Amino acid sequence: MTVSYEDVVSAAERIGGHVLRTPVLESAPGRFLKLEQLQHSGSFKVRGAFNRILSAGELPEAGVIAASGGNHGLAVAYAARALGVRAEIFVPEVTSPVKLAGLRALGAQVTQTGTIYSEAAEAAAKRAAETGALKVHAYDQPEVVAGQGTTGLELMAQTGGVDTIVVAVGGGGFAAGVAVGSGILGGPSGTAGRPKLVAVEPERIPTLHEALKAGEPVPVEVGGIAADALGATQLGDLAYGILSRAGAQSVLVTDDAIVAARRTLWEEHHLVAEYAGATAYAALLAGVYVPEPGERVAVLVCGANTDPATLAHGRG
Amino acid sequence: MTVSYEDVVSAAERIGGHVLRTPVLESAPGRFLKLEQLQHSGSFKVRGAFNRILSAGELPEAGVIAASGGNHGLAVAYAARALGVRAEIFVPEVTSPVKLAGLRALGAQVTQTGTIYSEAAEAAAKRAAETGALKVHAYDQPEVVAGQGTTGLELMAQTGGVDTIVVAVGGGGFAAGVAVGSGILGGPSGTAGRPKLVAVEPERIPTLHEALKAGEPVPVEVGGIAADALGATQLGDLAYGILSRAGAQSVLVTDDAIVAARRTLWEEHHLVAEYAGATAYAALLAGVYVPEPGERVAVLVCGANTDPATLAHGRG
Ligand SMILES: Cc1ncc(COP(=O)(O)O)c(C=O)c1O
Ligand SMILES: Cc1ncc(COP(=O)(O)O)c(C=O)c1O
Repeated sequence: MTVSYEDVVSAAERIGGHVLRTPVLESAPGRFLKLEQLQHSGSFKVRGAFNRILSAGELPEAGVIAASGGNHGLAVAYAARALGVRAEIFVPEVTSPVKLAGLRALGAQVTQTGTIYSEAAEAAAKRAAETGALKVHAYDQPEVVAGQGTTGLELMAQTGGVDTIVVAVGGGGFAAGVAVGSGILGGPSGTAGRPKLVAVEPERIPTLHEALKAGEPVPVEVGGIAADALGATQLGDLAYGILSRAGAQSVLVTDDAIVAARRTLWEEHHLVAEYAGATAYAALLAGVYVPEPGERVAVLVCGANTDPATLAHGRG
Repeated sequence: MTVSYEDVVSAAERIGGHVLRTPVLESAPGRFLKLEQLQHSGSFKVRGAFNRILSAGELPEAGVIAASGGNHGLAVAYAARALGVRAEIFVPEVTSPVKLAGLRALGAQVTQTGTIYSEAAEAAAKRAAETGALKVHAYDQPEVVAGQGTTGLELMAQTGGVDTIVVAVGGGGFAAGVAVGSGILGGPSGTAGRPKLVAVEPERIPTLHEALKAGEPVPVEVGGIAADALGATQLGDLAYGILSRAGAQSVLVTDDAIVAARRTLWEEHHLVAEYAGATAYAALLAGVYVPEPGERVAVLVCGANTDPATLAHGRG
C-alpha cells in the first residue's frame, strides 16, 4: 500500500474548492516559508481530512470519527461542518485548551481520554466499531497522506522548484505526502530536478529517527513542548515506506530550539506558529541543517493553533 | 508635484534588494489579502523609507530623521540600520509600548514628545534644521509615496489584476502610492483594466473624508483605537492631488468594526494585524463597502506592530 504522484494530483482536484492555496513568503533570497499555518482550521491537516471524507462515497449516519492531539481533530471537525456531517473527536489530556475550545466551537462531539495520542486513538477505534462512523486517521491512511501531499504540489508550482524541503514529522503523514507531491519519488521529471527532504523531529519524540535505525516503525517515548501535535508514539507504516524510499534525512531539534524558532517567526516575520509549526524552521535556525551556498530551501510552517498571549514580550 | 507610474517602477528597482515581496492570500474566491504586515519592520512603511534614503545620494553626517506615530519610525530605523546610517526618531505620547521597544531595539535615537503625531513632527522639523539630517517624511514626499506604491505594483502582478483595492488612509501616502502603482492613474493599459480604490478611515480620524468635502486638506480631530498609526492631523498635499484625481471612494469605519476585523483576521486566518492594519478589512467585514457578485477585491493588510497578548481569547 502506498501513495502515488497521481493520487496527490487527484486529491488536489478533489479538495481544491475546500482548502486554501497557502501563500509562500521568500523571507530571504532562496529561503521560502510556505505559510500552511494560514490554512483553514490552522494546519495542513484539513487537506487530508477533506480528501479522506470526499473519497468515501456515501457517508454513514454516524458521520466521521477521529483521534487527534488536536490539529487533526480540528481539521476533521472543520471538514465535517463544511460538508454537513457529524464529527466525533477523541483527544488525549495533552491537548491544549486552545485546541479544545476550537473543537467545541466547530460543533464536534469531543471526548478527552488517555494521557497521550495513542490512548485516545484506542478509544476512538472502539467507539467507531460501535457506531460505524467513517474513521479518518491522523496519518496512516492513503487518502490522508495524498491530501497532505497537495502541500508539496503547490510548493513546487509556487516556487518554480527548490533544492530542499524541510518538514516536521509526527506520525509522518505530512512528510510522506510532501515527498510524493513534490515529486521526490517520481512524478513528472521537470527541469527543476527532484528536491531532497529534511525531516525534523523534537529530540523527545523521535519516531522517524528510531524507525530508520530499527528498519521499521517502533514505539518511542513521547514528551516535550510539541507533544500535542507531534506526539504520535510510532511512525505510520505508510510514512515509513515512503520516507525510507525517498531517502529522507532525519534530524532532531531541542525544545529550546523550537521555542526560539517560534519566537523568531513572530519577532522577525510577524507570523504566529505553534511549537509543532515552528519545528521545521528550528532545524535551520539552530544550524542542525546547514544549506550549501545558493541552495534553495523551503520550510513548511504548518500549524497556528496556539495562544498568541504566549508570544508577548519576555514570555514563552 | 506628483508621482508617476514610472517613479513607482524606479522605486521598485531601487528598493528590491531591501524589502520583501509580501505574499497574497486568496482567502475566498476573488478575495485577496496582501500580507504587507509581514514586511520588514512590520509594515509597508519600509518601502517608502528605503526609496527616500536611497534616492538621496550622499547622506549627511547626522544621518536621517523622522517623526512618526511608530511604524514610519520603525521603518526608517530599520532602513538606517540596514544602510549603516544614524537615525533619529520623534514620536508622540500616543505611540504604543510595542513600537517604542521596537525603535530602541533597532538602535534609533528616540525622543517622545507631544500628544499626537503633528506635535512630534514639529519637534523633528526643528531638530532637523539644527543637525542637517535627511528628513524622511511619513507620507508627504514623492519618494515616500513612490516607495509605498510598489505595494500596488506587486499586487497587480501577483493577482493578475483586481477590480477593487481596499486600503487604509492616515496621511494618505500609502493609498496615493498604491493608486499610482496599481495603474489607476495611468501606467500600462493592461487587459485587466484599471481597478478602483476604496480608501478606508476610522470615523475618528477622517482626514481624506474631510479633505474631499472641503476641496483641500483640512485639519481634523485625531482619536480612537488606530491613532498611533493613522493619526495624521491632515491629509498630505501629494495624497490629496492623487486620490482626488484617482476618484478614490472614501468610506469610514467605527473603532468597533476595526476591533472585530482584527479579531477575525486572527481567528479565521491566523494573521496578526494591528488596528490600523485591520482597518481596510473592517470596511468589507462591516459591510461598509459591499462588492458586486464576481467582483475581485484586494484588501491591503498593512501593519503588525502590536502586542499579540491582546488577541488572547476574550480580550482586545
Ligand atoms: C502543526 C503540525 N505539524 C506537523 C504535524 C505532523 O504531521 P504528521 O503526524 O503527519 O507527521 C502535525 C500533526 O498533528 C501538526 O499538527
Ligand atoms: C499600519 C498602517 N497602516 C496604514 C497607515 C496609513 O498610511 P498613510 O499615513 O501613508 O496614509 C499607516 C501609517 O502609519 C500604518 O502604520
